[in-house]
Amino acid sequence: MHFFSDNAAPAHGAVLEALTRANPADAGYDGDALSRSLSGAFSALFGREVAAFWVTTGTAANALALAALTPPHGGVFCHRDAHINCDEAGAPEFYTHGAKLIPLDGPGAKLVPETVRAARAAIARDVHRVQPHALSITNATEYGQVYTPDEIAALAETARAEGLALHMDGARFANAVARLGCHPAECSWRAGVDVLSFGFVKNGGLSAEALIFFDPERAGATRVRIKRAGHLASKGRFQAAQILALLEEERWLENARAANAAADHLGAAAGARLLLPVEANELFVRVTAEEAARLRAQGFGFYDWAEGEIRLVTAWHHRPEDVAPLAAALRAL
Amino acid sequence: MHFFSDNAAPAHGAVLEALTRANPADAGYDGDALSRSLSGAFSALFGREVAAFWVTTGTAANALALAALTPPHGGVFCHRDAHINCDEAGAPEFYTHGAKLIPLDGPGAKLVPETVRAARAAIARDVHRVQPHALSITNATEYGQVYTPDEIAALAETARAEGLALHMDGARFANAVARLGCHPAECSWRAGVDVLSFGFVKNGGLSAEALIFFDPERAGATRVRIKRAGHLASKGRFQAAQILALLEEERWLENARAANAAADHLGAAAGARLLLPVEANELFVRVTAEEAARLRAQGFGFYDWAEGEIRLVTAWHHRPEDVAPLAAALRAL
Amino acid sequence: MHFFSDNAAPAHGAVLEALTRANPADAGYDGDALSRSLSGAFSALFGREVAAFWVTTGTAANALALAALTPPHGGVFCHRDAHINCDEAGAPEFYTHGAKLIPLDGPGAKLVPETVRAARAAIARDVHRVQPHALSITNATEYGQVYTPDEIAALAETARAEGLALHMDGARFANAVARLGCHPAECSWRAGVDVLSFGFVKNGGLSAEALIFFDPERAGATRVRIKRAGHLASKGRFQAAQILALLEEERWLENARAANAAADHLGAAAGARLLLPVEANELFVRVTAEEAARLRAQGFGFYDWAEGEIRLVTAWHHRPEDVAPLAAALRAL
Amino acid sequence: MHFFSDNAAPAHGAVLEALTRANPADAGYDGDALSRSLSGAFSALFGREVAAFWVTTGTAANALALAALTPPHGGVFCHRDAHINCDEAGAPEFYTHGAKLIPLDGPGAKLVPETVRAARAAIARDVHRVQPHALSITNATEYGQVYTPDEIAALAETARAEGLALHMDGARFANAVARLGCHPAECSWRAGVDVLSFGFVKNGGLSAEALIFFDPERAGATRVRIKRAGHLASKGRFQAAQILALLEEERWLENARAANAAADHLGAAAGARLLLPVEANELFVRVTAEEAARLRAQGFGFYDWAEGEIRLVTAWHHRPEDVAPLAAALRAL
Repeated sequence: MHFFSDNAAPAHGAVLEALTRANPADAGYDGDALSRSLSGAFSALFGREVAAFWVTTGTAANALALAALTPPHGGVFCHRDAHINCDEAGAPEFYTHGAKLIPLDGPGAKLVPETVRAARAAIARDVHRVQPHALSITNATEYGQVYTPDEIAALAETARAEGLALHMDGARFANAVARLGCHPAECSWRAGVDVLSFGFVKNGGLSAEALIFFDPERAGATRVRIKRAGHLASKGRFQAAQILALLEEERWLENARAANAAADHLGAAAGARLLLPVEANELFVRVTAEEAARLRAQGFGFYDWAEGEIRLVTAWHHRPEDVAPLAAALRAL
Repeated sequence: MHFFSDNAAPAHGAVLEALTRANPADAGYDGDALSRSLSGAFSALFGREVAAFWVTTGTAANALALAALTPPHGGVFCHRDAHINCDEAGAPEFYTHGAKLIPLDGPGAKLVPETVRAARAAIARDVHRVQPHALSITNATEYGQVYTPDEIAALAETARAEGLALHMDGARFANAVARLGCHPAECSWRAGVDVLSFGFVKNGGLSAEALIFFDPERAGATRVRIKRAGHLASKGRFQAAQILALLEEERWLENARAANAAADHLGAAAGARLLLPVEANELFVRVTAEEAARLRAQGFGFYDWAEGEIRLVTAWHHRPEDVAPLAAALRAL
Repeated sequence: MHFFSDNAAPAHGAVLEALTRANPADAGYDGDALSRSLSGAFSALFGREVAAFWVTTGTAANALALAALTPPHGGVFCHRDAHINCDEAGAPEFYTHGAKLIPLDGPGAKLVPETVRAARAAIARDVHRVQPHALSITNATEYGQVYTPDEIAALAETARAEGLALHMDGARFANAVARLGCHPAECSWRAGVDVLSFGFVKNGGLSAEALIFFDPERAGATRVRIKRAGHLASKGRFQAAQILALLEEERWLENARAANAAADHLGAAAGARLLLPVEANELFVRVTAEEAARLRAQGFGFYDWAEGEIRLVTAWHHRPEDVAPLAAALRAL
Repeated sequence: MHFFSDNAAPAHGAVLEALTRANPADAGYDGDALSRSLSGAFSALFGREVAAFWVTTGTAANALALAALTPPHGGVFCHRDAHINCDEAGAPEFYTHGAKLIPLDGPGAKLVPETVRAARAAIARDVHRVQPHALSITNATEYGQVYTPDEIAALAETARAEGLALHMDGARFANAVARLGCHPAECSWRAGVDVLSFGFVKNGGLSAEALIFFDPERAGATRVRIKRAGHLASKGRFQAAQILALLEEERWLENARAANAAADHLGAAAGARLLLPVEANELFVRVTAEEAARLRAQGFGFYDWAEGEIRLVTAWHHRPEDVAPLAAALRAL
């Protein structure tokens, strides 16, 4: 069993079925019935009118969000280890036409208001410095940590005070919501998030992510940017269908709960070896190179993270019996 | 029955089945077995070693191709009515960071060498003028016309003489090959095409197009550009699977033949009303507004093209019995 | 005597003196007294509050103007022979991050409202087409023709009706004003121009052009764009000083009158050989290759323009006695 | 007397005279005799064939250099406090079309090989991470520190080993050379520098900086980029003239020596209050707010740098008698 990434997990059966149901010819691009229902579906989920777009990847969702919030000459505060800063090959810079990501520090890839305020204060408000226009946080973070609604609200208040829009990279938003046990609105717009990249691919989707503007006005030219970036799929109904299938019957939440439970199971086994508490579906575990080799010899797949550390990622399809062998192996180390 | 666009046609059953077969977890991005086999599959098809990439849309394929061939300060010759010039919301300008599309004229959206030579000669070779670096042609064209291998070779010779790389937008490459009855190599690299956007979505695919560099060296940083544009799907196996399913058993060709046959059927019915010969799967037909209304009243869907002209597009799933009613209606006008 | 271009003419003595006067240390960038007085000086000249910036070149002025008026995904209507389209190496595309120049036709490089309206009407208002956001005209044009206030007003009305901002490339604005004999406001903001590139280099300057936003709000992030493009000279007072020296005592107008008068003198000599009426300081003259050679043999410098045509450009420093020999030579042909 | 910045100092008399000498009409852009002699002049200075360009600002020089060395999807290592990272409003990102500046740390704004190696090693060599293509250092640094030829050579060796080109921001290159007492080749190409932004504006120029490619091949499309950025002044002879005037009689070096000597004088007075040794023409001095106020009350102008720190910058025109009063005042604190 592999624990490399939730990126590589299968698509949920309901998603595949939805593709088949969506197959008959319909209007092209985003003119089909499914695509046209997307904003409504997310408005219902979040309890307010939103503008929602399907895109192919989380990278595109994030970059489109930042392009809507930041001019080419602006900057974006984010954590040093943020996916947008480290793992998107410069997509934010591409879509924003050269805005600057300004990396900040914080444990577990989480930011706190003081850090943002200090960084903002250190940038002279003159024409020579790139001025930040947005703050981007990731929930759950790249280290599997979860911001609470209160923590988000505190960052949002700071952002607003400093004139920054707030973007949330929610590649694992579902995992965060599942862990918090709150309404998705509580850890998004009610807490002050302006734009959310809402991940579905890691959570049972095939190729569709959602980009949510809680204030539809903020979306601005996003639809044009999607087209201009070659992301306006001509058979868009297949994109919308995936997301709608995961929204139905709260599958997105059920899937996230399964992934989180699998992580909890492993976390309990890892015990004191954990570098950080298990809050979503990623674990960072202290093992020696010899121990890591032993685990691999038993057929477990995962990435080395740093000297003496490995990363384990669970996914929506991991049942208790799938993770039990690794849990046992961790305990046996 | 609708004849708006082949964009909106269903996906082929084999494509949907391939998605299901591809579902079990595999390596992420383009590291899975299917993605890794893509260049091999196209190398086999074209009879030479090529570099092939899956992307989500034809717009992305075209823009990535041009970005590989043209620096930000360069230009691209294309037909005034080319999809890259008219229908991609500036995607080529986005991906190339501002290269200039230089529109040329020609009947049926086809270019001839004289036009390219004259345009090149009119551009002083100095630092003030944007210098063209590439020539892009579409086969079949936006007006459903097909370049023969000889016509392509003549353009390629001109391009080479003028220092221009040759890109072919092959959103309907399959339709051109089917019409020409030649080997796909004959109307691509053997005729001098450097890079081909090979369309699959219009031809039975769901969300996958192929970008083919006949000289793998030319691909350069294309894989990085794909990632940076948010087009490196994390479950890439679903992209590759679609294309491979259409390559198998020559489904791509069979599908194109069906679309062309449907167009022929309608073309025969349209007779003298045709503005251009039917060479692929698009027809441009002279009808009065009153006649167009009469056709619509009978349940046929299509776009007005210009004053007194409509466009009909057939697709891979149109069986003879699907087009017969419209053919009869056209005859009855 | 050379008639290649007014680009290469000397700087006016008053400009050189102004540099010397500006030499003592002052605040850097645009914080010095001269730079800070620039908007005021142009507000006085134009009779309304404007935002004025110095830049180094007309290319930068034009590109900055268009970047303020057009988003990266937008388009700009301009004449096919416009300097921004033909002679700026893609600077507008660079500064706008890939906006599309949409070339229009018209005699003497002039546009008329019907052409703009027809071009706008031909562009479907959908997400696939690049939507125009601005119209750019040149006065005097690249063919030395002058738009009257009425002609500008008619274009401005069309632009407004179509939602387009109006930019004027006034590299030779002084020549146009001198010819029209009107107040500079009459052929700029009163006629509906939103942004003016006001040329000084061709007209006695050394390295300074002015960029004028008639509505200061329109300037938006222009100052940041200037800095970001490396155009915010650290000793900006030397830039401002040049412009102020030419504004003083209406030297800009006096210089333009001298250039125009020299052109008139040559135009009278060229007579029926003129391709276009002489309205500013450029002449296009029909001469055979043999005649052109004869003129060159007499020491006159100029560019061939097309088969059987030469271009002659006069400049602010051409006194009657400087052009008399060429006038005589033209008469003698 | 002001010590805000060398940016605001006067131009050298020889520079103003050179402008007057350059005034007669010559070929436009960089086609004049002076511009055409520029590469030769720098080739003579550096003892090898170089390609040299004049530009208007150091920001433009740096951004053009980086654009020649780094693709849009690449990265540039630089010090966190580098001018390119902090004070150019994102010009490097603009000219490179979105390359990423990757900030590194080091005292006095200097970098050491270990830091570069560690940063490179931390970046996985995959498609997800922005890959660095260049290393940019500043000499003298933003904190007035000077890299020795050996220190540069060590960084260059590291850069070469890691596949990075080496750019030097030499806004105060003259000050570094003057301090080192070496041949300018020793602390540039002989030490492994590939491209040098050679500053003249801070050192007696008016509006001209030089951009030097030690391998002319590296310049690539730089001339086109200059034009496309609106930096190809139409009367380029005035740009070249300034630089040539400062190269003559080693004025650039003489001026730098004067600035450095003035800084030494102040440094001796500041004594233990200095935060860093005085190696060029910038001093960072510990003073309380009350002391700073006292200095200002005596008519001295300077910037606060941080809590309890001020920055003093001397310039080429500061004679001993100009700095003596401030030196006395510092001693008297």
